Amino acid sequence: MNHLSHHVPASARVRARALGIVVGALPTGHLNSITDVEGVLVGHSTIDNGADLHTGVTAVVPTQLTAARPGLPAAVHTGNGHGKLIGSTQMDELGVLESPIVLTATLSAFRAADALLTYLMARHPDGLSFNPLVGETNDGFLSDIRRRPVTERHVLDALEGASGGLPLEGCVGAGTGTTALGFKAGIGTASRTHLVDGIPATVGVLVQSNFGGVLTVQGTPMPVEQVIGEQDHDEPSGNSCMIVVATDAPLDARRLGRLARRAIFAMGRVGASYASGSGDYAIAFTTAPPQLPLLPDDAINPIFTAVMDAVEEALLNSLLMATTTTGLRGRTRHAVPYVGPLRPTLGSGRRGAF
Amino acid sequence: MNHLSHHVPASARVRARALGIVVGALPTGHLNSITDVEGVLVGHSTIDNGADLHTGVTAVVPTQLTAARPGLPAAVHTGNGHGKLIGSTQMDELGVLESPIVLTATLSAFRAADALLTYLMARHPDGLSFNPLVGETNDGFLSDIRRRPVTERHVLDALEGASGGLPLEGCVGAGTGTTALGFKAGIGTASRTHLVDGIPATVGVLVQSNFGGVLTVQGTPMPVEQVIGEQDHDEPSGNSCMIVVATDAPLDARRLGRLARRAIFAMGRVGASYASGSGDYAIAFTTAPPQLPLLPDDAINPIFTAVMDAVEEALLNSLLMATTTTGLRGRTRHAVPYVGPLRPTLGSGRRGAF
Amino acid sequence: MNHLSHHVPASARVRARALGIVVGALPTGHLNSITDVEGVLVGHSTIDNGADLHTGVTAVVPTQLTAARPGLPAAVHTGNGHGKLIGSTQMDELGVLESPIVLTATLSAFRAADALLTYLMARHPDGLSFNPLVGETNDGFLSDIRRRPVTERHVLDALEGASGGLPLEGCVGAGTGTTALGFKAGIGTASRTHLVDGIPATVGVLVQSNFGGVLTVQGTPMPVEQVIGEQDHDEPSGNSCMIVVATDAPLDARRLGRLARRAIFAMGRVGASYASGSGDYAIAFTTAPPQLPLLPDDAINPIFTAVMDAVEEALLNSLLMATTTTGLRGRTRHAVPYVGPLRPTLGSGRRGAF
Amino acid sequence: MNHLSHHVPASARVRARALGIVVGALPTGHLNSITDVEGVLVGHSTIDNGADLHTGVTAVVPTQLTAARPGLPAAVHTGNGHGKLIGSTQMDELGVLESPIVLTATLSAFRAADALLTYLMARHPDGLSFNPLVGETNDGFLSDIRRRPVTERHVLDALEGASGGLPLEGCVGAGTGTTALGFKAGIGTASRTHLVDGIPATVGVLVQSNFGGVLTVQGTPMPVEQVIGEQDHDEPSGNSCMIVVATDAPLDARRLGRLARRAIFAMGRVGASYASGSGDYAIAFTTAPPQLPLLPDDAINPIFTAVMDAVEEALLNSLLMATTTTGLRGRTRHAVPYVGPLRPTLGSGRRGAF
Repeated sequence: MNHLSHHVPASARVRARALGIVVGALPTGHLNSITDVEGVLVGHSTIDNGADLHTGVTAVVPTQLTAARPGLPAAVHTGNGHGKLIGSTQMDELGVLESPIVLTATLSAFRAADALLTYLMARHPDGLSFNPLVGETNDGFLSDIRRRPVTERHVLDALEGASGGLPLEGCVGAGTGTTALGFKAGIGTASRTHLVDGIPATVGVLVQSNFGGVLTVQGTPMPVEQVIGEQDHDEPSGNSCMIVVATDAPLDARRLGRLARRAIFAMGRVGASYASGSGDYAIAFTTAPPQLPLLPDDAINPIFTAVMDAVEEALLNSLLMATTTTGLRGRTRHAVPYVGPLRPTLGSGRRGAF
Repeated sequence: MNHLSHHVPASARVRARALGIVVGALPTGHLNSITDVEGVLVGHSTIDNGADLHTGVTAVVPTQLTAARPGLPAAVHTGNGHGKLIGSTQMDELGVLESPIVLTATLSAFRAADALLTYLMARHPDGLSFNPLVGETNDGFLSDIRRRPVTERHVLDALEGASGGLPLEGCVGAGTGTTALGFKAGIGTASRTHLVDGIPATVGVLVQSNFGGVLTVQGTPMPVEQVIGEQDHDEPSGNSCMIVVATDAPLDARRLGRLARRAIFAMGRVGASYASGSGDYAIAFTTAPPQLPLLPDDAINPIFTAVMDAVEEALLNSLLMATTTTGLRGRTRHAVPYVGPLRPTLGSGRRGAF
Repeated sequence: MNHLSHHVPASARVRARALGIVVGALPTGHLNSITDVEGVLVGHSTIDNGADLHTGVTAVVPTQLTAARPGLPAAVHTGNGHGKLIGSTQMDELGVLESPIVLTATLSAFRAADALLTYLMARHPDGLSFNPLVGETNDGFLSDIRRRPVTERHVLDALEGASGGLPLEGCVGAGTGTTALGFKAGIGTASRTHLVDGIPATVGVLVQSNFGGVLTVQGTPMPVEQVIGEQDHDEPSGNSCMIVVATDAPLDARRLGRLARRAIFAMGRVGASYASGSGDYAIAFTTAPPQLPLLPDDAINPIFTAVMDAVEEALLNSLLMATTTTGLRGRTRHAVPYVGPLRPTLGSGRRGAF
Repeated sequence: MNHLSHHVPASARVRARALGIVVGALPTGHLNSITDVEGVLVGHSTIDNGADLHTGVTAVVPTQLTAARPGLPAAVHTGNGHGKLIGSTQMDELGVLESPIVLTATLSAFRAADALLTYLMARHPDGLSFNPLVGETNDGFLSDIRRRPVTERHVLDALEGASGGLPLEGCVGAGTGTTALGFKAGIGTASRTHLVDGIPATVGVLVQSNFGGVLTVQGTPMPVEQVIGEQDHDEPSGNSCMIVVATDAPLDARRLGRLARRAIFAMGRVGASYASGSGDYAIAFTTAPPQLPLLPDDAINPIFTAVMDAVEEALLNSLLMATTTTGLRGRTRHAVPYVGPLRPTLGSGRRGAF
């Protein structure tokens, strides 16, 4: 059950860049992925029975978190709080990420947090207090969310199997069953680099996309009703977007909070409706060594641009890499077709590249 | 295992009023308990093996929460966020309490949230999204918290066994293993009433006390080192205080947030040190019917007073009703002795009663 | 000195709709203006000496504010707090707007607040405490901001001269000297209507636009460097955007805070870069009679859409109605030319109108 | 008009320590004053016509603020926001104090901010944006606040006359007309020192006290009705407390926000009622050189204690140093008499000193 969906060949799907979609003028990292931030790994556990279960777990694991360095500077921003982000208040207070970040489905979030606790306890045999960070979105349209199919094993697999390299995108892990902007969505990632005082800084983003609105690709709306036709069901309530922003730029929690806000702002670029029922959260953390001098606020704008561009592209990747999926009660969400304004002729460099 | 500690006769313990300690001038409700707020029930599951497990679950169940009325106006305030309050961001966004409130031990919080989900799902067979509210404090000084002994059954027992009447206080439920101000602490409750436009309004409070500082009774400090002698261990990190404020006054989420802030302020009255490692949270909700006109802000001061007085007395009750407990690794926390300044001669009515 | 700029014929400028730009599918109010919200008036005082002073005052005056009703439900959201919003903390606490809203230039904000106090004191002869609400953006690129040219008379003129009808837009009042997205900007307004339970609700927006980024019209970027050519100066630091959202929908402060957040989100639609040095604030208030039942959160999405569409169109109007201005030290900011993608052929209805 | 009140000999008043009141166990700084923080100066302008004007300005001037170092790490916490704190949103965003802190009377706050702007502009001849920080409380019970008697000259005098040494306390500067807990109050200051890694850290506090409640001295309530007799008027609405916390400990804005919260918590120790109409704000900043490593959160508790003890003592000093004042309409507020529980026999060291 722990495998990728097979009813549509995922290999046929490509990322935004392969379609000629270039967001912004900043260069990407080597893989255009959150894993371009040195030491940040990604792992997935996918639960897909080809029928009523399309769900899973995605873990973002910063290997800089060790017994010697139990917290990385971090912040969360709540764009719209109709969702759960387990661990957020302690992150607000202390300004640190104290665990890998686990993403999953709404009703499995607590079991996932308990499993993450198991993981943390094993690594800190004397620890009496932990702050597992778990986000969720609601994949209940395609998956039988009430079954709470995520087990401790799934979570540990995602954590222990986390690796560098380009993560799988689309219908995988916590994105197996999610939908966004009327289409099948899932996990997406992207990255940007920028020289800070001559030293390259990297911003990497990973998203679990699952929200409403009208798909907009580099400014061109592509309403699902026009592209695919009328859909059989509105987005379920509780749809949401989780955004993880990793960077190696030397920033403190306050500055990372500013990044997290921009991550939410960038959702609008792909047509998010910022609906009442959405749980839109961004978590930003840095892997920079603590002794580095902090990037001043008046030099931070390129990092803001990097965050917004990477979020936009990660969201597009989450859609473009997803495959048409039929799930619970025979409901279907279609993949975004590679036609029309998505063609490479769209041109590159919408913002700042002129 | 589901029973009260027996090694010290809890029946010998009395509440603050029985010792002549009267906080403030406002009258209490009938029972001087959170259950004085009509329809608010309390249930406990106690886990105490007489050895290394002293923990449990306490549930506050507002029966006004039904399928027809899925949310009660509510707010949370974080006094110090070194703790977990599962469900807080959605409460911030929507301003409603959507589930009973469950309190437990830190490392059991996620299992408790998952169990509360089970409870909610059973009551909403078509629901795809829920916001279980679970608070925790760390009872790891007296109890082997890493064993995560709280099961779904414990949580359901506390919820389903919740009742009106005066709840048990002290070493019971989520307070079985907690300690505060150097002494054994636990669960405490109190209430106040106040006429609003001739109609009685009730404020009820329940606390799970587990924080540092110097016990202060109506202004008189009672350092544990003087009262009992040197203690064998500092408070464990992660000690905290969870405060639940229920009222039947017609208030919206903004106003309830103001009440929650005052609940945190009142911790100082009993000597809280507001330490960095504490997770001090207050949750305030109202059971008032939605059609009632809201209490104006310029008439809210007596409610603020009611909250602060009830929190102070509930915290005292949580200590005075607790019994000396020996737990994990033979560690002992002593009950507050009924001697010295606690005698009735202390006088009544510290604030406003003159 | 208190007159409109004359060196460019403002009459030649038209609003977005006249160019065929239709944002979203919701109908506008009668005037497509914040003044479509019954009882909400707008007044301007313009200071323009044709040389180094291009500044002024814009007032939004809700006539529902009276001695009998001293506060309207209201909320503020800070998108980026590099700016001043005098009165924000009291609005956060009490959830009410207690004065007309005055917008002006950064270094004149305190004199404007003092003048607004004069206005309030005259209307409340026994009042000892007031909360004047004053926002600002920095027009120091075109205007000699350090001269603080705004007098009490300018503020009282804007307040006392406030009227219904379509307000002047572009280079007028607080927008006389502002610039945005590389072009001359200023004041803009727009409105939307929506049926709530069969009763029309109106959302009106007024903006003072003064921020960085790349002008984007219905998804098409129009970088100033391409449209006009290289500019002689970057945006000054401290550029910002003030957004006022008025509605007659029955909402409380919490819900209005949700609207204010969406107002900030909509800045991205016209290409805002959300820069570090920007003070981006949205203030939302309602004129609805207090006895009306509140709009439930699960029926609020059309209001969110109305806010975002109206903000986008108001921002476009603020640019399209502005005229090329040469100011301090001979610096020039050009008006957006009506060519290229702005032509009516652009098509109507980017979002949801298909 | 710019002189101290003379109708009661202020020289007869003494500070808390002179009455044997010792708060906590930490040592004070050399002067037990905010000026013990190296480089932090205090200046007052007092407006007292012996009749209906009892008001003024108090400035806290950190000399570390220079052209080379335009911001000091800082944070604000709003205990209750029924008041104005000009400049707070920019401090929230950027985490820095960019100007001296000016305290004054409510209706003079905007003129004071404009005057502080004059001061800042003179020191930064090319500056186009500033963030003057001005707090206020309402002294309208004893002083004719509607006359707005504070002029630019008063503010500049306070700023330019600021000096080290022990500042005047009680009825001076911004405290000339304030009242608290039923008594005449005013300005108070105190300090604490603590070794951090062997290096002394200093915390200094200055308060402008003007709030309701029942005076409580080291746990003993002293209701004004008992001590003095019935008073002729309740506290005016809008009464408040401004608390300035300065330190030389190396802290960032997030940690300073934690200090600011504790400053508000400490108001309860002297009997604050935390009333709805109060504007209770704390501002915390550090003068530590930016290159110092930050104090870890898990070593911060002694600093929290220092803040709370210094706030408690500064509040007591603000009352004990104030003198009976008759003002507007012949209203009188009495000084706290040095009798009863205030006598030295009260004993030293309420908290932690045992």
